[in-house]
Amino acid sequence: MKKSQSAKPHRTANETPAADPKTESPPTVDETMPVASPLSVVETAIYVDDLDAAEDFYQRVLGLRVVGKVAHRHVFFQVGESDVLLAFNPVTTLTGDTPHGATGPGHFALGIEMQALHAWRQRLRTLGVAIEAEVEWPAGGKSIYFRDPAGNSVELVTPGVWRLPSGW
Amino acid sequence: MKKSQSAKPHRTANETPAADPKTESPPTVDETMPVASPLSVVETAIYVDDLDAAEDFYQRVLGLRVVGKVAHRHVFFQVGESDVLLAFNPVTTLTGDTPHGATGPGHFALGIEMQALHAWRQRLRTLGVAIEAEVEWPAGGKSIYFRDPAGNSVELVTPGVWRLPSGW
Repeated sequence: MKKSQSAKPHRTANETPAADPKTESPPTVDETMPVASPLSVVETAIYVDDLDAAEDFYQRVLGLRVVGKVAHRHVFFQVGESDVLLAFNPVTTLTGDTPHGATGPGHFALGIEMQALHAWRQRLRTLGVAIEAEVEWPAGGKSIYFRDPAGNSVELVTPGVWRLPSGW
Repeated sequence: MKKSQSAKPHRTANETPAADPKTESPPTVDETMPVASPLSVVETAIYVDDLDAAEDFYQRVLGLRVVGKVAHRHVFFQVGESDVLLAFNPVTTLTGDTPHGATGPGHFALGIEMQALHAWRQRLRTLGVAIEAEVEWPAGGKSIYFRDPAGNSVELVTPGVWRLPSGW
């Protein structure tokens, strides 16, 4: 994956206060109305053909805690203090009020500290998870890539790649 | 989407220090070796058929800053201080060293403050983005769902749903 080196550690400009939700009559709104930008990606979805295999992999291999589970539909995992990884069976989620569900290998990246990279590399090898690629990014930071049981491309990434305020 | 109410605001147990990467000889590793859990989801990928439409939508409608762009391949957006949303053309990304690329509607959720919810609802309506569903979660928190131009299910979610340490 080619990543841009143009990121700067600044927030977007349109983070002025949002409208007061307690106001009875909605304020006049136009396209340029300032609305606070989204603060984070809270939930990331992947799609898997075998929920049990996904639960075993993300819990046992990656050490994520299961925070939700419905048989034949999904298993959810907490990542750190602020994120949730949602693993769905797309056959089930393509029906419902807000249908979604994809086929083919997806991708996401989990943040780890640089000093944990070596231990992760060793751990994956010990557990028989093949490392598909390792990348050292021009701006700094390193990534290792491997597959989950469904074939999704999982990346572990250290700080430095994106020059975000968070360090990543 | 059904979400679990079982989440607790505690970190996972295996966050002991990782091995020192400067050690010349790798330490003895077994499956139970403590490795620091991933700290966050840094990158979330979605797949789109029209990168220009995705760029317009996520930049103009959702206020995200473009931090990377390669014609016919991808456009990347910064979300808040710590996350990156990656929009890929799956036709292009299914070739390469770490191939990935899905078809069908994906899903992810962006975090917003509760006091911004009303302004977001109004903004989407003003810009002609149909709100597909609104959900008030039993544990607290609200979500609104809509589609990006590629058909991906985008959710704006307020704190309270997952009982994460972050508030979300």
